[in-house]
Amino acid sequence: MMAFPPFRRPCGISQQRTAMAATSPTGAPPRSGVAVDPALIDDLVAASRILAAEGVLDGYGHVSMRHPGNPERYLMSRSLAPALVTAEDIMELDLDSNPVDARGRTMFRERFIHGMIFKARPDVMAVVHSHSPAVIPFGITPVPMKPTFHMAGFLYQEPPVFEIRDVAGWTNMLITDNRLGAALADTLGQNPVALMRGHGNVVVGPSVPIAVFRAIYTEVNARLQAAAIAIGGPINYISAEEGAARDKVERDVGRAWELWKRKALGK
Amino acid sequence: MMAFPPFRRPCGISQQRTAMAATSPTGAPPRSGVAVDPALIDDLVAASRILAAEGVLDGYGHVSMRHPGNPERYLMSRSLAPALVTAEDIMELDLDSNPVDARGRTMFRERFIHGMIFKARPDVMAVVHSHSPAVIPFGITPVPMKPTFHMAGFLYQEPPVFEIRDVAGWTNMLITDNRLGAALADTLGQNPVALMRGHGNVVVGPSVPIAVFRAIYTEVNARLQAAAIAIGGPINYISAEEGAARDKVERDVGRAWELWKRKALGK
Amino acid sequence: MMAFPPFRRPCGISQQRTAMAATSPTGAPPRSGVAVDPALIDDLVAASRILAAEGVLDGYGHVSMRHPGNPERYLMSRSLAPALVTAEDIMELDLDSNPVDARGRTMFRERFIHGMIFKARPDVMAVVHSHSPAVIPFGITPVPMKPTFHMAGFLYQEPPVFEIRDVAGWTNMLITDNRLGAALADTLGQNPVALMRGHGNVVVGPSVPIAVFRAIYTEVNARLQAAAIAIGGPINYISAEEGAARDKVERDVGRAWELWKRKALGK
Amino acid sequence: MMAFPPFRRPCGISQQRTAMAATSPTGAPPRSGVAVDPALIDDLVAASRILAAEGVLDGYGHVSMRHPGNPERYLMSRSLAPALVTAEDIMELDLDSNPVDARGRTMFRERFIHGMIFKARPDVMAVVHSHSPAVIPFGITPVPMKPTFHMAGFLYQEPPVFEIRDVAGWTNMLITDNRLGAALADTLGQNPVALMRGHGNVVVGPSVPIAVFRAIYTEVNARLQAAAIAIGGPINYISAEEGAARDKVERDVGRAWELWKRKALGK
Repeated sequence: MMAFPPFRRPCGISQQRTAMAATSPTGAPPRSGVAVDPALIDDLVAASRILAAEGVLDGYGHVSMRHPGNPERYLMSRSLAPALVTAEDIMELDLDSNPVDARGRTMFRERFIHGMIFKARPDVMAVVHSHSPAVIPFGITPVPMKPTFHMAGFLYQEPPVFEIRDVAGWTNMLITDNRLGAALADTLGQNPVALMRGHGNVVVGPSVPIAVFRAIYTEVNARLQAAAIAIGGPINYISAEEGAARDKVERDVGRAWELWKRKALGK
Repeated sequence: MMAFPPFRRPCGISQQRTAMAATSPTGAPPRSGVAVDPALIDDLVAASRILAAEGVLDGYGHVSMRHPGNPERYLMSRSLAPALVTAEDIMELDLDSNPVDARGRTMFRERFIHGMIFKARPDVMAVVHSHSPAVIPFGITPVPMKPTFHMAGFLYQEPPVFEIRDVAGWTNMLITDNRLGAALADTLGQNPVALMRGHGNVVVGPSVPIAVFRAIYTEVNARLQAAAIAIGGPINYISAEEGAARDKVERDVGRAWELWKRKALGK
Repeated sequence: MMAFPPFRRPCGISQQRTAMAATSPTGAPPRSGVAVDPALIDDLVAASRILAAEGVLDGYGHVSMRHPGNPERYLMSRSLAPALVTAEDIMELDLDSNPVDARGRTMFRERFIHGMIFKARPDVMAVVHSHSPAVIPFGITPVPMKPTFHMAGFLYQEPPVFEIRDVAGWTNMLITDNRLGAALADTLGQNPVALMRGHGNVVVGPSVPIAVFRAIYTEVNARLQAAAIAIGGPINYISAEEGAARDKVERDVGRAWELWKRKALGK
Repeated sequence: MMAFPPFRRPCGISQQRTAMAATSPTGAPPRSGVAVDPALIDDLVAASRILAAEGVLDGYGHVSMRHPGNPERYLMSRSLAPALVTAEDIMELDLDSNPVDARGRTMFRERFIHGMIFKARPDVMAVVHSHSPAVIPFGITPVPMKPTFHMAGFLYQEPPVFEIRDVAGWTNMLITDNRLGAALADTLGQNPVALMRGHGNVVVGPSVPIAVFRAIYTEVNARLQAAAIAIGGPINYISAEEGAARDKVERDVGRAWELWKRKALGK
């Protein structure tokens, strides 16, 4: 029913161009890392569309990946609804969120979330920022998110809640500069997920598929936890030991990733 | 799956005709303003279908825009399920909700909602009336709607609740004349949203996309607020200061608008 | 995505045949009334598919209409999932639910619901029996269904709850004979809706579109009432006076009916 | 929208090959039973896709059937998202969950659930393991699942809850060997359904369609029970006598099965 733009880039060389464009003289703009495997760009595009198809993102929110050839850069769509992203829309930015080769493209105002997390967390290879609907209530009530089932075992590291009022008082709630981005990264600490009060959440992972997996199951877990609370009685959550034991299992998200790609990309 | 009528008007001139039709002699019917840019008609048609696709409207409800060339007129579909509206169905009415050129078309019985709000609120350029399902419970319980997240920051102006019993006693609940429309406009006051007890709500904005944006996020916020209440504990809502700071951000709804159009219109 | 059988009967004459088939000699089977306008059969088929598309029916449940030419007969699909019904599947039955011309077709085991209601209620022209999911909880808790918004105003006549244990003790819950059908019709009385404890509900109306309308908004109202209860506080329901004032408005369901047909039939 | 692989096996003979492949010399791998009717393989493939389409399975979970020609074997997909399963993916395993003819295909890590249940329950012909979302809260709260309506009457045998901590302490929650599978089968006992704390559930039946039917209505019932609890008051559940009386009715699931197949397979 939705006539989205074609998923494949029109010309295979474009990725190469994106990645290598800023081999200009010294000074700004920052020089690119190295060329990016088009299959990895495809994964990033798929991630954007999967998160939209699975209800984690609507017209807003974004997903990024660290540049595979240069840890001081990351890749992210230009400002665009996630369901509409194509490979042509992927831009390269440095960790201060300056574009390598903007070519007139508008960037997300909240890209500083991504840059500052990549800077603070060398282990992180992908970042999702969303307004994941079932999660938002847990950022505005005193009830902490906890893992209700094994698929969300990673939540045994209880997500901290970022309160923008603590660092910036009354704002429009957006993370629009590196100072706010750094404060959010500080709240995230070494966790896989942080909630943002009255806003949404950030989810990180060691790969794009794992970050997507965690973002989706954070949303699912929020629904299940709310349902369990409504049913009543003490809730028997996944323990820290059980959650930690999931770490190794979670590395293998291929089965779900293939399904999500099919559903989101229609192929 | 749905074989809706084509979105584009069959002939570009028809809009012109609609807008200029009533250049007849003095007296009734009221004379039209000036011709309307077909792209604006398209936006109004898109708004109707978007609100249906996003679950704000079902077979009932309607959206209107003030005539861009004549502030004493507004544009609105003939009586038709919102998902089925085409440019050919758009009619021009004066602010007392008399048609400029009815050509036998049936009008919505509750069009007086729109006319009276346009009359009372010169700043308003678009009006949505819906039975937005998650919102209805907040019109029949003592719990006021409040903004749970930044996307619904405009709700910092707490929506008043219109009680038709106060002005008309026992009725069939419909706003079927200008007196009732004026009473509703009076309750709305300077707010962006008013609830209608046991009926639905009205949402207004300075443009069609912004009114649509607010109608959609009023529905989403109602779901999130109900979920937060069910989770329990004091809820940390968006403050008035934060809500007010969203005003400027909200002007830029283009990213979501493009997505919604694609989803609703399939192109 | 669903490759349902074509909606239109393959040959226009088939309806005629169905309706006039049993012009056989005296004795059983009962003789048919008169031929049925194919457009009315189409409405009955559409009703079945609409109720499936709108989530009132799943693989079970059924809708019937009184024979337009013979009030002692009614029309109903053979035993089949509602989404799959075509005009060819419509059978004619007498009010004791004997088939006029079975031609080997299997009938619904619970057809006695329909026959006995048509017998008890001369004003009723259409009957829906469903397991409408949001309604079931109101049949097993002490909380009565009440109208939360004007679209469900007909619920001002509070739906009684049929308890099969009162008339038949421990059963498999099904209405499988005329005695049970009559008991259910007795509980329904002069109301538009009756709940069936641990089973579902029946909805009746003066036409197929109105019965469908009521079945859909009974489901919607159940969702809204549950949401209002969860939000908390005294609930301000539609009053009996307001509900009664809806009777006339409700006669005009054409706007929704056209939409539902488009959605359910894809045309 | 989803471009899933074609449902029909490319070549009719493949099933024959699957079933008869391991007619190799004595020793491992275990020898196959006899050839399987391709229509039964098709049912198993349909079951997998139906459970995905109906929201019982997501990217994870699986369904199996006992080998119709050899009760010491069972049939199950290779490790794959359920919505993507084709007849070519079906493997044969013995009751210790060793493959008859792996041909390099990866198996589900939790296949031991199926093997051990088939071993413990000669009456069981099909097993579903899922993370059925509405059911999970009932496995982590003290509230037992009970049947709210006749379609879920089989739940009159109250589902026991399997606690993996009791048999294995802190784990990654998975049933990855025969010892854990046997413990789960022991908890299941003679019931049709067992919940798995913080994980999901298992549903068994005397045929593939009946196991699918029970898995779907276990999910539906969990939603209805949660809704009834939220509405409040004592809940009038289906009694044991009524539930038991459903046993015979339940054997006839053909009407729903045909619908589900159409929806899941698009034909």
